[in-house]
Amino acid sequence: MTLYFIGLGLYDKKDISFRGLEIVKECDYLYLDSYTSLLNSSKEELEELYKKEITLADRNLVEQQAEEILEQAKRQDVGFLVAGDPFGATTHIDLRLRAHKAGIRTEIIHNASILNAVGEIGLELYKYGKVTSIPFDNEKIDTPVEVFRLNQKNKMHTLFLLDLEPSRDRFMTIHEAVEHLLSKGLQPKQRCIACAGLGSHVPEIRVGSAQQLLQVTFTKKPCCLIIPAEPLHFVEEEALEIWK
Amino acid sequence: MTLYFIGLGLYDKKDISFRGLEIVKECDYLYLDSYTSLLNSSKEELEELYKKEITLADRNLVEQQAEEILEQAKRQDVGFLVAGDPFGATTHIDLRLRAHKAGIRTEIIHNASILNAVGEIGLELYKYGKVTSIPFDNEKIDTPVEVFRLNQKNKMHTLFLLDLEPSRDRFMTIHEAVEHLLSKGLQPKQRCIACAGLGSHVPEIRVGSAQQLLQVTFTKKPCCLIIPAEPLHFVEEEALEIWK
Repeated sequence: MTLYFIGLGLYDKKDISFRGLEIVKECDYLYLDSYTSLLNSSKEELEELYKKEITLADRNLVEQQAEEILEQAKRQDVGFLVAGDPFGATTHIDLRLRAHKAGIRTEIIHNASILNAVGEIGLELYKYGKVTSIPFDNEKIDTPVEVFRLNQKNKMHTLFLLDLEPSRDRFMTIHEAVEHLLSKGLQPKQRCIACAGLGSHVPEIRVGSAQQLLQVTFTKKPCCLIIPAEPLHFVEEEALEIWK
Repeated sequence: MTLYFIGLGLYDKKDISFRGLEIVKECDYLYLDSYTSLLNSSKEELEELYKKEITLADRNLVEQQAEEILEQAKRQDVGFLVAGDPFGATTHIDLRLRAHKAGIRTEIIHNASILNAVGEIGLELYKYGKVTSIPFDNEKIDTPVEVFRLNQKNKMHTLFLLDLEPSRDRFMTIHEAVEHLLSKGLQPKQRCIACAGLGSHVPEIRVGSAQQLLQVTFTKKPCCLIIPAEPLHFVEEEALEIWK
């Protein structure tokens, strides 16, 4: 029997792949990771599309009750559904590792994640450096700015992922993120690219100085922020014109 | 009318998303990028699935005859199909930019790319630095080793993409890539992870020293190589155990 890790993509129920959907329909049991990311379709909408019941796996289930999932995968085909790509989060690597140790076959159905969706804004994907996250409680946190400085020094673009708690419908805004970075010494004139709902087919993308972006209201979620390493290649420079 | 950029994912015709497939079926005209990556399904297999004819877009068409695609997109819905994610390659950014300038609406349907598929090997995705490619003619090329050294110095993992010419069924092997790196000063004992067919549901992944990997035969394609920045987090270390 197999434990399938199935990426659902970045927007809603329609972003699953054809292969993923075929496997979901064959699985005996389905879990949906409900805490690491956001999908604009409810559990019920997915159940309707799949013609199958889904068990929500919250942080507690995945990290502490992984045994339950593994026991099932010994006897039946189990699908573990994750918004985005299955291995954006280390938690799922751990579940896969445990499956491996228990002698359970695993198979991965990849999908888009924010790491390739940022390609859409037009900065060369190969030139990104380390990725960093801005957490909600960030007063004493210096990591995002430190990663940014390290990347800048090495002429690498920086992607900041903004914190989210989908279960509480709580999403950090671009405004909050920019204010955090300014409080840690970012120059108000620093050119940034702000994205909301990136990876969906209807994202909001704006380029401007940190200061300017404070004035922009975004309606989509989740959000991320990119600071390019200057100077840009002329194709990158031209591409950013789209978002002014 | 809209120019759709539609990612086909990493393995074969079944990796397109449900949304992508819906849009393909609505498009009046379809182009398939035939040179930047590999799909294990022929144009004919895709045509059968889509119930629609496809025009192959070779490098010449996309870079020099973009006008033809744009003219069509002014009057009809056009789908531009790309293996992997649409914006892995800068060429497509350029096409999108031209569409924007010509006042043509664009929409992006993302999919998995090698940049998130590497998550499967178990190294933290956020800790990767710049990505580099090893070209076929590499005797006088130092970029891959230079990028590796820069990443190592900053404790970032390095992903090397190995060259490919799908139209001529030519793919650089792990053996060739490792020999190139050794000739440029890589230590024979350096720990590396070699992947073939990564992103498919049946990849080959092996971890070992550069020297050891020279002895391994891989049957899948295309290939990539990862050199981790030591020391690893203990979960990363454990994850690599799977591939020994």
